[in-house]
Amino acid sequence: MKRLILAAALSALTSATARAQPTGDDLTSVAPALAQFSRDRLMGEVWKRPELSPRDRSVVTLAALIARDHTAELAEHVGLALDHGVKPAEISEIITHLAFYAGRGNALAASAITRAVFARRQIDPAALPAVSPDHLSLDEDAEAKRVAFVRQQFGGTSPGLEQYTTAVLFRDLWLRPDLAPRDRSLVTVSALIANGQVAQMPYHLNRAMDNGLTQEQAGEVIAHLAFYAGWPNAFSALPVARDVFAKRAR
Amino acid sequence: MKRLILAAALSALTSATARAQPTGDDLTSVAPALAQFSRDRLMGEVWKRPELSPRDRSVVTLAALIARDHTAELAEHVGLALDHGVKPAEISEIITHLAFYAGRGNALAASAITRAVFARRQIDPAALPAVSPDHLSLDEDAEAKRVAFVRQQFGGTSPGLEQYTTAVLFRDLWLRPDLAPRDRSLVTVSALIANGQVAQMPYHLNRAMDNGLTQEQAGEVIAHLAFYAGWPNAFSALPVARDVFAKRAR
Amino acid sequence: MKRLILAAALSALTSATARAQPTGDDLTSVAPALAQFSRDRLMGEVWKRPELSPRDRSVVTLAALIARDHTAELAEHVGLALDHGVKPAEISEIITHLAFYAGRGNALAASAITRAVFARRQIDPAALPAVSPDHLSLDEDAEAKRVAFVRQQFGGTSPGLEQYTTAVLFRDLWLRPDLAPRDRSLVTVSALIANGQVAQMPYHLNRAMDNGLTQEQAGEVIAHLAFYAGWPNAFSALPVARDVFAKRAR
Repeated sequence: MKRLILAAALSALTSATARAQPTGDDLTSVAPALAQFSRDRLMGEVWKRPELSPRDRSVVTLAALIARDHTAELAEHVGLALDHGVKPAEISEIITHLAFYAGRGNALAASAITRAVFARRQIDPAALPAVSPDHLSLDEDAEAKRVAFVRQQFGGTSPGLEQYTTAVLFRDLWLRPDLAPRDRSLVTVSALIANGQVAQMPYHLNRAMDNGLTQEQAGEVIAHLAFYAGWPNAFSALPVARDVFAKRAR
Repeated sequence: MKRLILAAALSALTSATARAQPTGDDLTSVAPALAQFSRDRLMGEVWKRPELSPRDRSVVTLAALIARDHTAELAEHVGLALDHGVKPAEISEIITHLAFYAGRGNALAASAITRAVFARRQIDPAALPAVSPDHLSLDEDAEAKRVAFVRQQFGGTSPGLEQYTTAVLFRDLWLRPDLAPRDRSLVTVSALIANGQVAQMPYHLNRAMDNGLTQEQAGEVIAHLAFYAGWPNAFSALPVARDVFAKRAR
Repeated sequence: MKRLILAAALSALTSATARAQPTGDDLTSVAPALAQFSRDRLMGEVWKRPELSPRDRSVVTLAALIARDHTAELAEHVGLALDHGVKPAEISEIITHLAFYAGRGNALAASAITRAVFARRQIDPAALPAVSPDHLSLDEDAEAKRVAFVRQQFGGTSPGLEQYTTAVLFRDLWLRPDLAPRDRSLVTVSALIANGQVAQMPYHLNRAMDNGLTQEQAGEVIAHLAFYAGWPNAFSALPVARDVFAKRAR
């Protein structure tokens, strides 16, 4: 009797866990064509296109999954990112960065899943970024221009937002050394596209390209994101990217 | 003692499961007016309006819940869809379709929940769509126009996206036979409205109406979605629908 | 043996529960800088800024978390809201309101979490709002203008939406007495900003200010939301707020 109850409890537990974390089996059982597409076309072809390195694709994918709160595949992709050479400290900084560029709740949900992967991989806590590291140096001219532009456009609308954008984002977060500015930009642009926030794209796509992202890579980021964040978000990013590319070419 | 621990485990389990899957009881305990509204007004009145069949309302509701990752009511609505005559193969195709039009993570989360409902209803796996079925025939003229339009508008911005849009979406996904083009359009438009992606609505609302959706039905889709995806998304869809209707009336 | 299985079951259970509900420990283990920022800067500084009361910040935060389906911190913030003087009946109405202004699934997920907090705090069910209370009185002139405007703009596009907007929202939901119109507006504006639905902001920000929200408070709502809904949503709200403020100043 006890054994039966225990078996029932374990079975219910397994099913509760399964419900919380969908598996490849679920996909095969319900949408077998999509499961095969994922293996053959997405992992077997898209991820191997030379326009973007596997490491960059991992950064873009993590950014999209975290920014959209898509936890189902996140553990798998944290593992894949580590395999592709994304460092634990970089993953930690991606999560911290997205707390500000996607939302606190996204970072919290991602940290629970990432913690379990780090534990399984026996990542040394010493590999994580320091709380208060030495900052990268700030381009004071560019930052002064940004502040002046925001003040001229929105001055006084939300003094608190102006103040914290300077203090928390551009004089702290962006200067943390464990994620390169180019990768921080890649994370930001990916999150904006994945969440359809195209109004904020021109500034950050320009910044990304100033930080070293090429036009070919940016175009491929949009193609890669179509598979994770859906075609409509990819297509809404197209006219914005086209216009940024055109302006920079002049 | 063992019995006590077991009871505690089962109770904790129940509560963990409850937390993952909210129930009608939760609503009654916290927001009794909303619970009564759901029974009397939403299920008792809105779902019975003749402007849209119960089957179409189920397709629209599934699309909205999956596109928004709203898993709380999804199992119930998969069951209701089956009761309303939506076939298991159609539900499978809706999930596959939304992997591309809402996001992979949405399809994964939906497949885990749908799998459990299919198991409870003892759906025969043979009822699911083939991985590589014979395709519906393609309207080559319309597709050539679509490709030319995208090239003219965005040519070269994201060559990968252009290529996969043709190969994966319009020469494969849309031609899969187990979901009629009109229903595929209904799913697409519902997902776009439910996620506030109005920039992609004109093309797909026109396509839906070309595929047989009437203006009265389209207007009622927006009304129905207000209850599931919120009034702001419904109101943001209104000017787009108005303009599409006006252009087609000329 | 049984003891081992039981221990394994309990441990698996704990980990399943932990995965569903991220904790501060997860953050500390993965992103220690973000954890310290949360304690020192967000709770220790932002929440204490005088531009918005702790009670208002709790209303804004609850609205953002529920509207974005961010359940990780919701239980903690329901508790904090109660500590800040938000009444159980007000929390119940916030959830009901967001069923219509964010989505049904959001309200369902929030009700499951809130129910558990109410149970722990031994909230008397009699403290919840009546299903059919006496309504606040309606400003018939303003409502007639709203109806006429919607008809003139969108008349006939979605007759069902027009009808239910009047019957369910403006002649029922907004008149429920257990959440003051000013707070209902605060919840609505917060949800719109948190979800990036700026197209619906001008009407509701004006309504909020008509209902007593000051310009300074509105600006601080945007700053507060940056920390919970991400900087891109805050920045997309800025030009809309600026233009509403400017028009009202004329």
